[in-house]
Amino acid sequence: MTDDPIRRAVAQLRRLPGVGEKSATRLVYWLLRAKPGTAEDIAAALLHLAENVRECGLCCNLGAADPCPLCANPTRDPSVICVVEEPQDVHAFERGGEFRGRYHVLHGALSPLDGISPDSLRIRALLQRLTDGTVREVILATNPTLEGDATALYLGRLLSGIDVRVTRLAHGLSVGTEIEYADAASLARALHNRRAL
Amino acid sequence: MTDDPIRRAVAQLRRLPGVGEKSATRLVYWLLRAKPGTAEDIAAALLHLAENVRECGLCCNLGAADPCPLCANPTRDPSVICVVEEPQDVHAFERGGEFRGRYHVLHGALSPLDGISPDSLRIRALLQRLTDGTVREVILATNPTLEGDATALYLGRLLSGIDVRVTRLAHGLSVGTEIEYADAASLARALHNRRAL
Repeated sequence: MTDDPIRRAVAQLRRLPGVGEKSATRLVYWLLRAKPGTAEDIAAALLHLAENVRECGLCCNLGAADPCPLCANPTRDPSVICVVEEPQDVHAFERGGEFRGRYHVLHGALSPLDGISPDSLRIRALLQRLTDGTVREVILATNPTLEGDATALYLGRLLSGIDVRVTRLAHGLSVGTEIEYADAASLARALHNRRAL
Repeated sequence: MTDDPIRRAVAQLRRLPGVGEKSATRLVYWLLRAKPGTAEDIAAALLHLAENVRECGLCCNLGAADPCPLCANPTRDPSVICVVEEPQDVHAFERGGEFRGRYHVLHGALSPLDGISPDSLRIRALLQRLTDGTVREVILATNPTLEGDATALYLGRLLSGIDVRVTRLAHGLSVGTEIEYADAASLARALHNRRAL
C-alpha cells in the first residue's frame, strides 16, 4: 500500500463497483476541493456503516437494530410475509407504501451455477416464522428472472405442506426488471394482482 | 443527520459528484456484502487524504510533502516551469514522461462569470519563483478552452515585463485524430498554426 495520500485514496475508491482509475481520481480531487470536513463525514459514515449494520433475527433484513423497525412495529400486519431477495427490495416496497405486512429477506436467489443453494439463503429462518400459526399468507416477491422464478417455485413446493396461503407477485412487472429499480406504481399493481401459486 | 447507518451512508455517498440516490444505495449494499474490512479501508484512506494532503509551498501542487517530490527532485530542470490549471494536469504530463522541468499549479483558470479572478489563482506564488533569475522559460499549459486561453493571455502579458521566455503549448490535431472527425475549432487552430515542412 502506497503511503501517498492521493494515490492511496484513488486505489481505495477504485475498489467500488463501476469506479475506474479516472473516476476515482476525479472523486479524490473533488474531495480535496470540497468544503472542509466532507471527506471526514463520508469516512465516518462508512465506518458507522461497517460497525453498526446487523441482520434482523426475524426477517434477516439489514439495519441498525435487531429486531428491525419493521419487525418491531406493532401496526404492521404479522399475518402476511413478503419474501424478497435483497434488502434493497424492502426499500422498493416501502417507497410505494402499499404493503403493510412484514418482510423476509432471503439474501439472494437460487443459482446452482453460482453455487447458491437453498442452504445459502435465509430459508430456515423463514420456516421458523411459520411454525406458530400467526402467518396466514406468504407473498413470494422474488425477481421475475430465471433465478427469482426458480426460487419462488422451490419455496412454493416447500411451503405446500404448511397451512399457509402462498402467492406470487403478479407479472405486471416486465420480465427482466429488477425489483430494486421498479417504479412505485408498477410495484403497487403487481402487489394488488398477486395470485395463488 | 439520520442515525440509521445505511441511510446515513447513502446520504454521504450522494454528496460525491455523479453519484445519485440509486448509485449510492448500490454502493452501500455492495459494501455490506464486500470482504470484511473494505468499508474500513476506504474510510481510512479518505481520512488519511483529508489529514495529510497539503499544498507545496513552491509549485502549489497537492501532495503529502512540502516541498513536493517534484520540487525536491534535484534531477529536474529548475530553469523551465510548466504552468497548469489543476494537479491532475501534472499527472497527465508525468504519465508522458516527456517533460523534465518543474511545474506550477494555478488551481483554476480565469473565469469572471464564476468569480475566479487573478487573485483566486496561485499567480503571486508563480511570480515569486521568477525573481531570482533561475527560471528561463515559462510554458503556459492551461487548457485550450475559453478560460484556459484567457488565463494564458493574462499571464503572457503579466510576464512580458520579466526577462523570461514565455511559450504556450501547441494546439492542433491530436495524434491519431482523423480530419474527417476533428472538431472545427481544433481544425481551425491546426490550420492557423501550420508550419513549413
